[in-house]
Amino acid sequence: MSPSADMNPDRSRFPKCAIVTGASGFIGRSVTRHLAENGCIVKGIGTSEISTAERDALSIAEWYSGGISSEVLSQASKNAEVIFHCAGSGSVPLSLREPMVDFEKNVAATATVLNFSRENGKLPVVFLSSAGVYGNVAKIPIPVTASCDPISPYGINKQIGEILVNQYARCFDVPCAIVRLFSVYGAGLRKQLLWDASHKLHQGDFTFFGTGEESRDWIHVEDAAELIVRLWRHASVGVPVYNGACGDKVTNRHILGQLAECYGLDHAIAFDGRGRPGDPKAYVADITTSLETGWHPRVALREGLQGYADWFRKNIIPELSRKTD
Amino acid sequence: MSPSADMNPDRSRFPKCAIVTGASGFIGRSVTRHLAENGCIVKGIGTSEISTAERDALSIAEWYSGGISSEVLSQASKNAEVIFHCAGSGSVPLSLREPMVDFEKNVAATATVLNFSRENGKLPVVFLSSAGVYGNVAKIPIPVTASCDPISPYGINKQIGEILVNQYARCFDVPCAIVRLFSVYGAGLRKQLLWDASHKLHQGDFTFFGTGEESRDWIHVEDAAELIVRLWRHASVGVPVYNGACGDKVTNRHILGQLAECYGLDHAIAFDGRGRPGDPKAYVADITTSLETGWHPRVALREGLQGYADWFRKNIIPELSRKTD
Repeated sequence: MSPSADMNPDRSRFPKCAIVTGASGFIGRSVTRHLAENGCIVKGIGTSEISTAERDALSIAEWYSGGISSEVLSQASKNAEVIFHCAGSGSVPLSLREPMVDFEKNVAATATVLNFSRENGKLPVVFLSSAGVYGNVAKIPIPVTASCDPISPYGINKQIGEILVNQYARCFDVPCAIVRLFSVYGAGLRKQLLWDASHKLHQGDFTFFGTGEESRDWIHVEDAAELIVRLWRHASVGVPVYNGACGDKVTNRHILGQLAECYGLDHAIAFDGRGRPGDPKAYVADITTSLETGWHPRVALREGLQGYADWFRKNIIPELSRKTD
Repeated sequence: MSPSADMNPDRSRFPKCAIVTGASGFIGRSVTRHLAENGCIVKGIGTSEISTAERDALSIAEWYSGGISSEVLSQASKNAEVIFHCAGSGSVPLSLREPMVDFEKNVAATATVLNFSRENGKLPVVFLSSAGVYGNVAKIPIPVTASCDPISPYGINKQIGEILVNQYARCFDVPCAIVRLFSVYGAGLRKQLLWDASHKLHQGDFTFFGTGEESRDWIHVEDAAELIVRLWRHASVGVPVYNGACGDKVTNRHILGQLAECYGLDHAIAFDGRGRPGDPKAYVADITTSLETGWHPRVALREGLQGYADWFRKNIIPELSRKTD
C-alpha cells in the first residue's frame, strides 16, 4: 500500500491531545515523551498510582490510575483525537503461567478501548501488536501479509486483539492501525534477553540458553515510539498493518557479544543448546509498509546497546550490590 | 478424519456427570434432557434463578445461577467428566447493537471455562460455535476445513472463541471439540426466522424480508443435542471440528411455505427483496465429520416444523391474544 493511499490528510503530524494507555509502561512512556515533545497533551491511563513528580517526569498532563474501563476512558477523553493503546502484557512466559492475566490485559482491555471509540466519536486507535502473532514462519523476512500461526498464549491473544480491531473497523467504522512490534529494547526495560543477560554477565556467567543462532529483529524503543505516533495519520477502517522492526537479522550470539563489549567485558559467550517453549527460532521483519510512512529507524544497534548498558550500570548494579551486601 | 482416529475409547457413550453451561437456554435444555435421559447427572450453570419445579422439569440435578466464573465452575465440578459449554449469545442483531455484551458472553465466558478446565484436571470441553464463523463462502456445501471470514461481531466472536479453544488445547492440553451449529430450531425457540415469521403469519402478514432465495441448513434442536453429547468422546487436543446441520439447502421461500402449511394457512408467501446486514446469503454444510461419529439427523424438516407450529399455537398464541385483548 502506498503512503498516500492510507494517510489521512486531515490529521496533522502530531495530535494536539491524545490518550495513551499503559503510559507508564516501557513503550508507553517513550510514546508519551515523543508526543509531549511535539506539543501534544497526553492523558495517561494505567493501573498504578504515580506521584506528581513522576507524572511530570513522564510529561503526562493527566493521569488516570483506574486501569482501562469505559468510565476511565470517558474521563480522559475530553479533546483527545486518538488512542495509542500501549497497555498490555508483553511476556510469553507469563502467558504460559497465567493465561487469564494475559487474556484480560491483551484481549479484554482491547475490546473495552475499541468499544469506547465506537461509542465516542470513533476516535482512531493505534493498537500495539507483536511479532508473536506470526508464530514459526516458513520464510524470512516476514511481510505484514504473512499468514499468522502464533504458538504461545501471548501471541494468540495479540492475534485476537488484532481480530477485535478488525471487527470494530469493519462493523463499526472505527479507524485503526496495527503495529506488530518485534524485539523492542532500550533503557528501562526490566525483562527479556538483555535484562537477564546483563544480570548474568555481572555475575560472571557467560553461558546462555539456546544455540546462539536464534535471531531477532531488534528495534530501539525511541524508534518504535516514533513509528507508533506516526501511525495516527494512517489509522483507517482498512486497518493498515506495520512491522515495528529494523529489518535486520541479529543472532543472540551477536547481540550478547556486543552487550558484553558495552560492559567492557572481554570474555567469549557460550550457549547450552536448550530451547524455551513458545519461542520461535528466527524473526526478521519486512518493514516495507513502515518505511512507506516516511519513518525510518535511527538508533544503531551498538549505540542503543551502549545506552542500555549505561542505564543498567548506573541504575541496576548499585541495587544488586546493595542486595548482596 | 476417521471416527476411530479421534474417538476416545476410555469414555463411554454418555458421561455419568456433566456440567452444562447455559443449561436453561434453548440448546442447553435439549442437551441437558438428552444427557439426563441417558443416566447422566447434570450440573447446570446459568445467569437466572430457576425454581425447583423448573429445575426438575429440565432434569437438572444441581443448578448454579451465578453465571460463568471459576468459583461457580468449581462448585459445580465435583465428579463432572466434561463441560458442555452451551452458554453464549446467539444473535447477530444484538451483536451489532451491543458488541460488548456479545464479547462477554461468547469470548470472555469461553476463556473462563477453558481456564477452569486447565486448572482442574483438564476436563474435556465441547464448545458450541456457529456457522457464522464461515462468513460469506465461495463454495457450498461448506466443509469444516473451509477458511473462515466472519462478517458480524457475533460470527467474529465465535471465531475468537474457537481460537481460544485451540489455544488451551495446544498450549495446555485441554481436550476439546468444536461444533459449528447452523440454523437450529425447535419448540421453545423465541427468536430468529421461525419466531418472527410465526408472529407475522398470525397477524395475516405474508410478506418477508429478502428475496426468498436465501438458504439455510436447518437442524432440529434434538438432533443438535444428540450430536453435541456424542462429541464428548471425540474431544481431544487435536480439536476436531463438526458442522451441526443436516446437509440440506433449504430456501426461505420453502421453509416459510412449509411453516404456513403447518399452521393450516393457505396463502402465497411474498418477499420484499431487502437484505439484512451481517447475514450471509447461502449456507449449506458438508456434514462428513459429523456423520463419521455415527450420528445422523433423525427429525425431518416437515415433522420438526409441525412440532414448532404446534408449540407456538399452544403456548404463544394465547399470550398474543391476551395482549391484544
